Amino acid sequence: MGTPKTKVPTPSYDKLTAHFQKISHFEHFSALGDWDQAAMMPMGGGQDRGDAMAELALHIHGLKTSDTLAEHLHGAEDESLSTEQEANLREILYQYQQANLVPGDLVQAKTKMAYQCENAWREQRKNNDWQGFKPNLKAVIDLAKEEAQIRGEAQNITPYDALLNKFEPGMTTAKLEQTFGGLKDWLPTLIQDVLTKQANEPKLVLNGPFDISAQQALGRDVMAFLGFDFNHGRLDMSSHPFCGGVPSDVRITTRYNEADFSSAIMGIVHETGHARYEQDLPQAWRGQPAGLARSMGVHESQSLFCEMQLGANPAFLRQLQPKIAQHLNCHFSAQELAQHYTRVNPGLIRVDADEVTYPCHILLRFEAEKAFVDGSLTVDDLPDFWSTQMQQLLGINTDGNYRDGCMQDIHWAVGELGYFPSYTLGAMYAAQCRFAMEKALGPIEALIDAGKLDSVFQWLREHIWSKGSLLTTDELIRQATGETLNGQYLERHLRQRYLGI
Amino acid sequence: MGTPKTKVPTPSYDKLTAHFQKISHFEHFSALGDWDQAAMMPMGGGQDRGDAMAELALHIHGLKTSDTLAEHLHGAEDESLSTEQEANLREILYQYQQANLVPGDLVQAKTKMAYQCENAWREQRKNNDWQGFKPNLKAVIDLAKEEAQIRGEAQNITPYDALLNKFEPGMTTAKLEQTFGGLKDWLPTLIQDVLTKQANEPKLVLNGPFDISAQQALGRDVMAFLGFDFNHGRLDMSSHPFCGGVPSDVRITTRYNEADFSSAIMGIVHETGHARYEQDLPQAWRGQPAGLARSMGVHESQSLFCEMQLGANPAFLRQLQPKIAQHLNCHFSAQELAQHYTRVNPGLIRVDADEVTYPCHILLRFEAEKAFVDGSLTVDDLPDFWSTQMQQLLGINTDGNYRDGCMQDIHWAVGELGYFPSYTLGAMYAAQCRFAMEKALGPIEALIDAGKLDSVFQWLREHIWSKGSLLTTDELIRQATGETLNGQYLERHLRQRYLGI
Ligand SMILES: [Zn+2]
Ligand SMILES: [Zn+2]
Repeated sequence: MGTPKTKVPTPSYDKLTAHFQKISHFEHFSALGDWDQAAMMPMGGGQDRGDAMAELALHIHGLKTSDTLAEHLHGAEDESLSTEQEANLREILYQYQQANLVPGDLVQAKTKMAYQCENAWREQRKNNDWQGFKPNLKAVIDLAKEEAQIRGEAQNITPYDALLNKFEPGMTTAKLEQTFGGLKDWLPTLIQDVLTKQANEPKLVLNGPFDISAQQALGRDVMAFLGFDFNHGRLDMSSHPFCGGVPSDVRITTRYNEADFSSAIMGIVHETGHARYEQDLPQAWRGQPAGLARSMGVHESQSLFCEMQLGANPAFLRQLQPKIAQHLNCHFSAQELAQHYTRVNPGLIRVDADEVTYPCHILLRFEAEKAFVDGSLTVDDLPDFWSTQMQQLLGINTDGNYRDGCMQDIHWAVGELGYFPSYTLGAMYAAQCRFAMEKALGPIEALIDAGKLDSVFQWLREHIWSKGSLLTTDELIRQATGETLNGQYLERHLRQRYLGI
Repeated sequence: MGTPKTKVPTPSYDKLTAHFQKISHFEHFSALGDWDQAAMMPMGGGQDRGDAMAELALHIHGLKTSDTLAEHLHGAEDESLSTEQEANLREILYQYQQANLVPGDLVQAKTKMAYQCENAWREQRKNNDWQGFKPNLKAVIDLAKEEAQIRGEAQNITPYDALLNKFEPGMTTAKLEQTFGGLKDWLPTLIQDVLTKQANEPKLVLNGPFDISAQQALGRDVMAFLGFDFNHGRLDMSSHPFCGGVPSDVRITTRYNEADFSSAIMGIVHETGHARYEQDLPQAWRGQPAGLARSMGVHESQSLFCEMQLGANPAFLRQLQPKIAQHLNCHFSAQELAQHYTRVNPGLIRVDADEVTYPCHILLRFEAEKAFVDGSLTVDDLPDFWSTQMQQLLGINTDGNYRDGCMQDIHWAVGELGYFPSYTLGAMYAAQCRFAMEKALGPIEALIDAGKLDSVFQWLREHIWSKGSLLTTDELIRQATGETLNGQYLERHLRQRYLGI
């Protein structure tokens, strides 16, 4: 009656969007709870928070598997929807199906155990306490394996593929092995060549101390330079840098080292890439599945675009140099900074790795996760596995150093198996985007030098950010770059930057 | 079967406690959301947060009015419960009844409007923007009046009594008018006498600047001195000091003034009083209604005990003096500090008021709230009402100064009418407790000088904190002090401290 004639009523679809809007309100609090736990919460609050988060996860799971949804999903299929509404319906259906794979009590148990394990891990990691961490990790991995089994069986795919799909819908182990296999062909030689080339280059000595609050102020300056909207987000500290919150209020964190500002600042650049994506997701689809970031691989592509394609670019460092000099009262030249940020140095820590050796850290974790899930690796054997792999991939001995070895990451501690490949997928998508962008806009280095960072972001907004989950990942990347995932662009990027060829 | 013979099964009661445990997990997030909004959230996040908080409030309301509860409440009446379980059942029933008074859509609308109004108020207050604030305040007050009407009718009490009951179960306007009426008899003369007495006393000039981070460090030191448990809480900044969070993770805030540290620090002492109460609520009743703080009047009594009975005590300031000197690098004597903190100075701002003139600020608000609810005062007329009352009560002109007049408090902005009397009830309970405590332990001044602050807190823990809501307010105060609310102790305290009689 009150509806304009031109608009065909879509009652089932409308019920679905209202229901998912409600779900997004509850997810608001799980995002807030996660951020707070990492950035603010004192240790003693962990038990209650874990219980509350588990209750909330169970409630959200209940909403996503609600009986009435099947009926509305069925009804919406026959309704006249726009292309974008069709996409939203596809994403709603996917969330419904994914949630229905797993029983609620497993969701609750996983959330509770993850909180318990993570909370203890913060101290245990500091103390290199592998014996203390081990039983928690075992419990978390067991739950993740149970989840993988259940998800895999229900979808008739392998258990590990089922985990990959949580973060990268449509991704398979086979596709990853092919992509990462290609990487294995050229990366070891490239690393050796770069190490040889850089052997005699001068090393920048970051002779701190650099005041933490000055580093923070510098970080905020860099965020503003990268277009972070402080009316819709903030910067804080946590032991493991991340980007959380919700699109209208994006919370990023970093950690500081008084002796060396370079890691905190580039961490901020990385997280700002995540944040821009979140802040610029399509306004019209806020609170709907189609309005969410496409996948964790695409998410990491945006952060790594900021960190590696932009951040480590000599032109960007020419812009950064006066800010660093001003805030930290030190006078490294732009060229010194560029050398520092492109220094290849096989090391223990993934988050501190340069972009050339970084994929090795992912290959290790990818192999370990597969082996956890197929049962060929146990938590007891993890340290040995780690040592052997680090020796093989990067020639580094990690015996006895659990803290900087298999205890360094938060992902497994919170039961997130299947996430790690996203980082290297992200690096590949980022390189692929940069080459596509340069076809349209010319060299990115010239754009930065000309003060046209805006046009870089405009390209990302148009091709990636504003699309949310309206397209599948393959279609998103194809429309943006002309082809689906192609690891060769990462190779080309690394050869250009590190060997000048 | 598995149950020991001595324990009679209580299936209905058990279902109720499980249900309220679940409710407490959702209330965890409304506490977190409130704290975050005040202490962390950027303005731009307000709309989404408000929507999410409203959704959560509706959900909690739904849980508290769930159909199955009536049945379990009925069943539990016939079960064999301990005295404490009976008390918990009484509190569960009360929460159920209170929630059932109000329809869910009003709860949601109130939460949403409160968030919108508060968010805008932060800026509007700064800008003295009464015209901008007015329509929001009207909407919030209208909703509060609607709530009062509905609650009053359903309980067959007056609308304003229904609001009082939200914060102070069992309190009535008649009882308050009697208590506050007594106050009106002696307070104006006392203020005049103190002003005369202090007229020629030297005034402490706080010639800052005092570094904000030094004030923060001092604040944390004072919190530790007062027994705040940092493993279960933290200190942050917000424009309106408050105590929030949950008992396992209590979040207090203050605001800083570079030119004058004294308000921030005593604000911290006040909020630490709230925090100790929360942190020391009975562990065995966590997550249950019987484990909650008794009422807002009792809550304010604990903060005001810390601030006024302890904090402004010369002995306490002798302990505080070296901490202030150390952190702020200034050398006010303990006697100067004691004079400063007992300086009576009729002023515009309630939260900055001394304890002698403070009740005047409450009398004004109490009259305004009653008049709002009975319709004899409109929002349009509030500024005039405020001016007249301030002139009458404290001889101060507030014409045109909305910021420091009727826009100064957060309470009405978030739709909380009926809360203000808690402050003066708290001051009365606090004085009453101090006299009772001194009967058992001797003068509090001597205890502090002897380094026996612990025994002061032990008394509060034993008589107030550990009781949660196991007793009614009257019974709690009677067991602690030998009689129910008696405003004469506040009068006696003020005469002793300010006139030496
Ligand atoms: Zn990232
Ligand atoms: Zn208070």
